[in-house]
Amino acid sequence: MSRPVVTIIGLGVVGGSYAGALTEAGYKVFGVARSDETIAKAKQRGMIADGGTDAARFVSNSDVVVIALYPGQIAPYLRTLAPYLRPGTVVSDVAGIKSTIQKEVEEALPDGVEFVFAHPMAGREKRGIDYADPAVLKGANFILVPGAKASQSALDTMRKLAEDMGFGRVAEVSAKRHDEIIAFVSQLPHAIAVALVNSDEESAETEKFIGDSFRDLTRIASINEKLWSELFLCNRDNLIRSIDDFERQLGAIKTALQQDDKDALEALFRSSSERRSRYVKK
Amino acid sequence: MSRPVVTIIGLGVVGGSYAGALTEAGYKVFGVARSDETIAKAKQRGMIADGGTDAARFVSNSDVVVIALYPGQIAPYLRTLAPYLRPGTVVSDVAGIKSTIQKEVEEALPDGVEFVFAHPMAGREKRGIDYADPAVLKGANFILVPGAKASQSALDTMRKLAEDMGFGRVAEVSAKRHDEIIAFVSQLPHAIAVALVNSDEESAETEKFIGDSFRDLTRIASINEKLWSELFLCNRDNLIRSIDDFERQLGAIKTALQQDDKDALEALFRSSSERRSRYVKK
Repeated sequence: MSRPVVTIIGLGVVGGSYAGALTEAGYKVFGVARSDETIAKAKQRGMIADGGTDAARFVSNSDVVVIALYPGQIAPYLRTLAPYLRPGTVVSDVAGIKSTIQKEVEEALPDGVEFVFAHPMAGREKRGIDYADPAVLKGANFILVPGAKASQSALDTMRKLAEDMGFGRVAEVSAKRHDEIIAFVSQLPHAIAVALVNSDEESAETEKFIGDSFRDLTRIASINEKLWSELFLCNRDNLIRSIDDFERQLGAIKTALQQDDKDALEALFRSSSERRSRYVKK
Repeated sequence: MSRPVVTIIGLGVVGGSYAGALTEAGYKVFGVARSDETIAKAKQRGMIADGGTDAARFVSNSDVVVIALYPGQIAPYLRTLAPYLRPGTVVSDVAGIKSTIQKEVEEALPDGVEFVFAHPMAGREKRGIDYADPAVLKGANFILVPGAKASQSALDTMRKLAEDMGFGRVAEVSAKRHDEIIAFVSQLPHAIAVALVNSDEESAETEKFIGDSFRDLTRIASINEKLWSELFLCNRDNLIRSIDDFERQLGAIKTALQQDDKDALEALFRSSSERRSRYVKK
């Protein structure tokens, strides 16, 4: 089977990285962006075969279309794109939440066109094509969310794309489960990093004293506020639940401190060390 | 001035890294450890000129002695060492807390011997000489805590040692201030990482879904429970205060979620992004 022709809509960090990785893997890739400057950069860096600011002529010649925009932009964009999509086209996204967008996105889909929701667990704190880099996708987790408008063949196409882009494990879950898990593995860590940095004393010369642990934990406190406030609010019930669970565990540490309970602290530390070793085999 | 002869007591991750870095920098370094096996490894890796399990004969021939043991072991060890220390010797430590140990350590010091408390902001999650690596010290922050038994010349000696080992910024603060800052920049991040990992559902196949942010935040959840429970309890008032401050900031995020307040979330994210950029210039 020859490789599908792919159009990427939105050449930011994730869309640009997709484009670069697929081009490297031998796919023919078109890019669509809001500015000619972005298209010029993508061409110059060899990420796309061709591209422009008008999606119509590219998507009508594509087998796969990836809408790498913010969650709330996907359905509206898909409606403008609908007349140009060929039957059989597989459309996908890269959004960090699924339940709240699934229905609207699937309703915007023209007959004969399929939609496979996807969430690449890779990104960067910076925005824009200048920070796109196929290397960030290598070995990363890739989550497929089939939805109601995806055939097995469409799922297979997206799985193959993920593998060809260099992703590691490909998991398949429902939109509901995706959002529950993401509240914990992605949104909660971002909330924690933001709260940690914001709890610093204004006057402290913190930079003189930090070590790797602080640097690692706060890397994602540098955060795209438009995207992440949208992601947080679209998943608020799950995220509030994850924050509650986390607060209880932090409370257990605080209680052990207040009670001067070394055994309790050690037990909490042994538990976290053991769990952490299950996540990351190295 | 010729380089001081240095004895490192304890060849774990930090002590071993010190030994290796000082040897690389041209210092004559002796190592003292509890087991002959550790000494053999340190010799084999070229980290020390000589060493053994008995400290007396090495410290009596040293200008600088670094006690790289757990906080609570320092004063007792120093008492056994006292008869063998020459006047003019500079003794230092690597402990992560200072206020609770300062008095006892200084009282254990024989006449004419100086003590400069120090805290290298570098380490690893693993324990033991196998994980010692001078590379982790390169560019790291180094904190000097002068105490009551350190002359300017002793401080200069330790500052020079830190620079020669490849540390970046060298800061000088009181024991009280050190412990306040460390509660925030080091202990709170460890408490957070532990609580985050411990708040995971037992049944979730989390490893399939995590991205870099989760990996970074939880790296230090793999934690030496003996050392860190001691560090936490020795600094409990400061750490409880840091946890309280952090909880308030996390609470602000939760409130914004509950009130569906996008503006408030964005403001919190802008604040954290701005603060984070002040810590880390890159």
